[in-house]
Amino acid sequence: MVCRAFLGPAGTFTEEALLSLGTEGVRLVPCATIGEVFAAVASGECDSGVVPIENSVEGSVNETLDALAFDHELHITAELVRDIHHALVVAPGVRLEDVTAIISKPEATGQCRAWLAGRLPGRPAVAANSTAEAVQRAIAEPGLAAIGTTLAADLYGGEVLHEAIEDHAGNQTRFVVIGRGLGEHTGKDKTSLALFMQRNKPGALLMILSEFAYGQINLSKIQSRPTKKQLGEYMFFVDIEGHMSDPAVALALDCLRLKLREVKVLGSYPRVG
Amino acid sequence: MVCRAFLGPAGTFTEEALLSLGTEGVRLVPCATIGEVFAAVASGECDSGVVPIENSVEGSVNETLDALAFDHELHITAELVRDIHHALVVAPGVRLEDVTAIISKPEATGQCRAWLAGRLPGRPAVAANSTAEAVQRAIAEPGLAAIGTTLAADLYGGEVLHEAIEDHAGNQTRFVVIGRGLGEHTGKDKTSLALFMQRNKPGALLMILSEFAYGQINLSKIQSRPTKKQLGEYMFFVDIEGHMSDPAVALALDCLRLKLREVKVLGSYPRVG
Repeated sequence: MVCRAFLGPAGTFTEEALLSLGTEGVRLVPCATIGEVFAAVASGECDSGVVPIENSVEGSVNETLDALAFDHELHITAELVRDIHHALVVAPGVRLEDVTAIISKPEATGQCRAWLAGRLPGRPAVAANSTAEAVQRAIAEPGLAAIGTTLAADLYGGEVLHEAIEDHAGNQTRFVVIGRGLGEHTGKDKTSLALFMQRNKPGALLMILSEFAYGQINLSKIQSRPTKKQLGEYMFFVDIEGHMSDPAVALALDCLRLKLREVKVLGSYPRVG
Repeated sequence: MVCRAFLGPAGTFTEEALLSLGTEGVRLVPCATIGEVFAAVASGECDSGVVPIENSVEGSVNETLDALAFDHELHITAELVRDIHHALVVAPGVRLEDVTAIISKPEATGQCRAWLAGRLPGRPAVAANSTAEAVQRAIAEPGLAAIGTTLAADLYGGEVLHEAIEDHAGNQTRFVVIGRGLGEHTGKDKTSLALFMQRNKPGALLMILSEFAYGQINLSKIQSRPTKKQLGEYMFFVDIEGHMSDPAVALALDCLRLKLREVKVLGSYPRVG
């Protein structure tokens, strides 16, 4: 039996993503926070974990990036990209005109703002810690309508009043599988890096990009991030195409290690899309 | 009377930042969302607005970046950097041992996780839409303790049980003032840009950094961001030192305009720190 931790509770978008990996012979362990998913894998209690890392509307999930860069020696072993659809979920029998308030994670409510203004104008927004918690509360309090997954509606016995109420089509979230080992080498891979700068070295980023250009290595993401100490002291999160065992990638990383304060490989794993 | 919109309700960290600008002859208009602050300024109802744009722990505030890049023709006219301290706020007379649950924005609760685990272990976390809402609810329901500002405690009549309960010292937030005009030119300025790439142009970022290096222009921030359409289609948010009317900056922007799909100046304004 393989044990897999995920950002719960049951019925979140993370569980929807996870189910796409198959569930036979897998024990699923819902965790309350991203930090707990990492801790469950680091301690050996679980073999792997699934957490969100980037959303096309909300941007990076800093808690996941920071756990990889600062707090743990775990690796990304795979990525999953999922379309995100928000459903309006109510207790059985409740109609749209009965809804007096909306409940969800503030981020999810924000992604449906135009739909809500058109169809449920003036209803106050109540905050929840997760979309799954929102669905559970909506089922318990029939005046509330939750924004959540159809999975959570099924799981907790809610009714889906409307599907896909999000304002922007093409809302996608990238999830990563984290583990104690390394990802597979398939020939169509991606490597995620955390690059820590020396202080006061202007031109460092230009040098980094030149090393990748020399190796004909494409970047798919770059993000400067204040180190946790102070705004203005920066490091970079970079995603590049290729596996760390590819000669061109290995050479670029060796050259960067000679110059930067630290080069931390967060994972080399099969690339989606 | 000058009218200034801000991310409310009264007692948020944004209002704390705003008060440092002085309040004489200023009418303050609290807005429920960052989008409403932008709308109030764009419509002419208010002269300026104050919103958060980056936190040293949480990272960028995408709602603010997107409003500047995609939704409005407003400019950043100033920035404010503030130390963020979270206080534990309760109804008058409530002691630490009476606290049965914690309420705040999930982000704020997350920033105090270690302190809470040590001093209030096992108390469930209740979600609120803002730290100010959390303080109001804690005062109404004496079993709840809120994580919020000392300003909100004063404003709504709460009691501060503990100050500075955040886990990481040096938590800072950068706020920006947005307006319809342009920022001052002081000689110690910063310019914020949104750079939109042409499709399938490898090497574009290296070219961009080379233009800035040629002008001896330092970058203080770079972040690739999926356009709202799909993960994988990117633009960049870049902060550089200097004012858009400085000759070196103006030349670099002219060169970039010839090559990129769009160069949008989000503002040139006095630099803090």
